Amino acid sequence: MTRPPRRARAVDVAAHAGVSVATVSFVVNGKAEGRVSPATRLRVLDAIAALGYVTDASARALATGRRRQVALLAHDMTNPFTAQVAAGAAAGIAEATEGTGHLLLLLGSDETGPDVEPVGAATVDGVLINYPGTLPAGRPDLPVVHLDDPAAGGHQVSMDVEVGARELARHLAGLGHRRVLYLGTPRPWSTFAQRRDAFAAELAAVAPGAVVLDDRCDIDLAAGVQLAGEHAQRWLADGVTAVVAATDLQAIGVLAGLAAAGVQVPGRLSVAAFDDIPFAAVSAPPLTTVALPARELGRRGAVLLAGVIAGDRTEPGDPVVLPARLVVRDSTGPAC
Amino acid sequence: MTRPPRRARAVDVAAHAGVSVATVSFVVNGKAEGRVSPATRLRVLDAIAALGYVTDASARALATGRRRQVALLAHDMTNPFTAQVAAGAAAGIAEATEGTGHLLLLLGSDETGPDVEPVGAATVDGVLINYPGTLPAGRPDLPVVHLDDPAAGGHQVSMDVEVGARELARHLAGLGHRRVLYLGTPRPWSTFAQRRDAFAAELAAVAPGAVVLDDRCDIDLAAGVQLAGEHAQRWLADGVTAVVAATDLQAIGVLAGLAAAGVQVPGRLSVAAFDDIPFAAVSAPPLTTVALPARELGRRGAVLLAGVIAGDRTEPGDPVVLPARLVVRDSTGPAC
Repeated sequence: MTRPPRRARAVDVAAHAGVSVATVSFVVNGKAEGRVSPATRLRVLDAIAALGYVTDASARALATGRRRQVALLAHDMTNPFTAQVAAGAAAGIAEATEGTGHLLLLLGSDETGPDVEPVGAATVDGVLINYPGTLPAGRPDLPVVHLDDPAAGGHQVSMDVEVGARELARHLAGLGHRRVLYLGTPRPWSTFAQRRDAFAAELAAVAPGAVVLDDRCDIDLAAGVQLAGEHAQRWLADGVTAVVAATDLQAIGVLAGLAAAGVQVPGRLSVAAFDDIPFAAVSAPPLTTVALPARELGRRGAVLLAGVIAGDRTEPGDPVVLPARLVVRDSTGPAC
Repeated sequence: MTRPPRRARAVDVAAHAGVSVATVSFVVNGKAEGRVSPATRLRVLDAIAALGYVTDASARALATGRRRQVALLAHDMTNPFTAQVAAGAAAGIAEATEGTGHLLLLLGSDETGPDVEPVGAATVDGVLINYPGTLPAGRPDLPVVHLDDPAAGGHQVSMDVEVGARELARHLAGLGHRRVLYLGTPRPWSTFAQRRDAFAAELAAVAPGAVVLDDRCDIDLAAGVQLAGEHAQRWLADGVTAVVAATDLQAIGVLAGLAAAGVQVPGRLSVAAFDDIPFAAVSAPPLTTVALPARELGRRGAVLLAGVIAGDRTEPGDPVVLPARLVVRDSTGPAC
């Protein structure tokens, strides 16, 4: 790439147009009205064009090659829900920047969460956070949008998991289930607490005396397989007739573990979950689940973040809450 | 990394060689022809080598910490194989840069492939390409590593899909299968051609007279479900006893479609594929598949790219080929 020996600055524009730097500043910042005559304003604009002076902050950063990108901090890209969030966020960034922006990916491990350190040094304009955590010190100015973490505060896009959880509770209560195992996760994420609490509250409301037992495992196919293999007989001995998992990944693992243990679904146990990843439709049996719009979560988050970066929104407004709905398939049936 | 107190600059090279800075510039920018005598050009190149002057724009940016990121061009992050490649690439970049580098994500749609335009403007040091395509014009200098695209040439990391395909052919031949439907993809990707051709060649070698029929569908659960739903009866009428899909995603869809159509697997039809994504182990029945190391593909690609960027490797060496192996599960059985 060829490059001019020196990039034009406001002082060059001022000299070229025969005005003060303050006048240039008024013009480029849209404050010429009442301060700069139309003729002078035209002269400044001509000078800007002649010298190739870049005025817009984002365009300036792009021109100097410093930014025009946001980071996505996420836990695990091999989780299909997260992958959909990332795909949506990449689409949202492209949409908001007319194809000139891109998504930077920061991933964590099971133990540590994403490595947020790079954000301190990285040349990003903002951050999408899809795990429970905060930015490292030193960048309090960096625009942030939290995804699916309603307790995070600040700018956020979340999903109405409570509406979905209550719908699922009514569905299972209507099938006669009164003893439900709720399979949570070890991750201290507000969305997971919200799912469980709304489910338990609604079940208690529509089926007084119903009991929710709690267990937990990693958000992982293998963890679900292992848990079901080890605990299925105890669940049945405890009178449990339905298992609700916090995520499809756990539930699909549980289905495989129950199949291996010879436990019929939904004959002996009903199984349901949250997310509706594409695999939920082809599990055996196909999974009843609360559909959460992962891709739209990422897309809307990216568009909101672009607005925050552009200065369109400085104070957090009402959080964006995307709808959730129950999808009933074959993994839930009458309590035995 | 230790660093000399001051990095050599063009002016140092000029002084060392006894020429002007303009002459150095002509040489390093490939414009010496007709301007600089061969003897002078050699003297400049000697000075460059002696002073460790870094001429490559990418390496210079990396060393001065202005970029420190690479792009991954991929088709679809919601494909679990691609997501694993991305997770591996992020880990590889972190490894190669001691945690200071990051991965930039560029995704394509079904129709268009990744939007490669941003790479022209983006501040990346190099690109990992996990789809069949080339970079946009204007960046011929950008280091590139191709992943899983053996026909791409240049720096690349691939997997021994041929060994896996032949192992699968022998497995099915040993079970008595002589009429196999091979389910390819519409994507013109050399890895897919290699899988199909190696499978067909080995089947013909070990089971003379065996027939491979061809069909294709998108790499997508829903496409597999639909294809199996529409074609299963025709496959059976044609005497097909096994279906081999180019990817697990297609095969898991086919399994769901066959279940919905009441076709027993492996009783009436055996089903096998390539990839071994985590869902292959929990499909119904669990899927026989050629395990391909997606995560390691991304990781090794990123480490190789870092080496190319650092200038450790300028000419492509032997391609890195990672091992593949057949994982036999319950979806394949004796031909009926």
